[in-house]
Amino acid sequence: MVRQAPRDAQTRKADTLAMLAAPEIDVWVATASTDGEAHLVPVSLAWVDERVVIAVPTSSVTTSNLTVSGRARLAVGPSRDVVMIDAVLERTVGVDEDDALGAAYAAQSDWDPRGDSDYVFLVLRPVRLQAWREANEIKGRTLMRDGSWVV
Amino acid sequence: MVRQAPRDAQTRKADTLAMLAAPEIDVWVATASTDGEAHLVPVSLAWVDERVVIAVPTSSVTTSNLTVSGRARLAVGPSRDVVMIDAVLERTVGVDEDDALGAAYAAQSDWDPRGDSDYVFLVLRPVRLQAWREANEIKGRTLMRDGSWVV
Repeated sequence: MVRQAPRDAQTRKADTLAMLAAPEIDVWVATASTDGEAHLVPVSLAWVDERVVIAVPTSSVTTSNLTVSGRARLAVGPSRDVVMIDAVLERTVGVDEDDALGAAYAAQSDWDPRGDSDYVFLVLRPVRLQAWREANEIKGRTLMRDGSWVV
Repeated sequence: MVRQAPRDAQTRKADTLAMLAAPEIDVWVATASTDGEAHLVPVSLAWVDERVVIAVPTSSVTTSNLTVSGRARLAVGPSRDVVMIDAVLERTVGVDEDDALGAAYAAQSDWDPRGDSDYVFLVLRPVRLQAWREANEIKGRTLMRDGSWVV
């Protein structure tokens, strides 16, 4: 059931950037193992220099899958106001290795992994980004393609 | 930041069953291809006879991945009140093949795929189910293991 008129591309981009920069926002991170098993976890995100930054245990399935495959599919927002992102792993950073990154993460997130050597930052670069609310927004949902904004 | 006291196991189970039976509820469906690429989509669900039933295009990546691997990881609810389900594909049903299933899906969901031969029902059997809100509910989050409720 569609409840609202579709947003135009500029509005979707503005809403997307506002959502990604919101405090205490979470992201669903889907990754796959080499033998075809999907993993999915919700974690806090920071949006830093147009990258999705997450902090996860070094020993987690998410870290392992991303280190091997280099790819993840991300979802931010509720299922009827979603930002879907196909991303690649740009770099893996120890939680105390990059002061600016750690500070940016702690400022946006509601927790601070710095000082906990069990955790690592994964910096994910969006390659494709789509945003839609209801079925009437499926058309025009692609806002970024091949790593570049198309709006 | 933890905002609430942890729920006991029975409360989590009751909350989980209420969430799964709620009208117009969505599920995040994570699947993987054989070459280790994760897919993730939000779709409507119906909770029928302790199975998660979704309706997806026959030609979709989700259908293809599930047909090959037989496995999916599902998330219902927002990221801080989540039900995470590891599920296996029990059966694939044409949208007009099983009257009871189609009626149950249409009754809970806010759309009705019946009559659209591009769609198929995938009936997913939960194997492991976990439910938690905040960090203080990580302990005790497993409510179903090996397909059986443990609470």
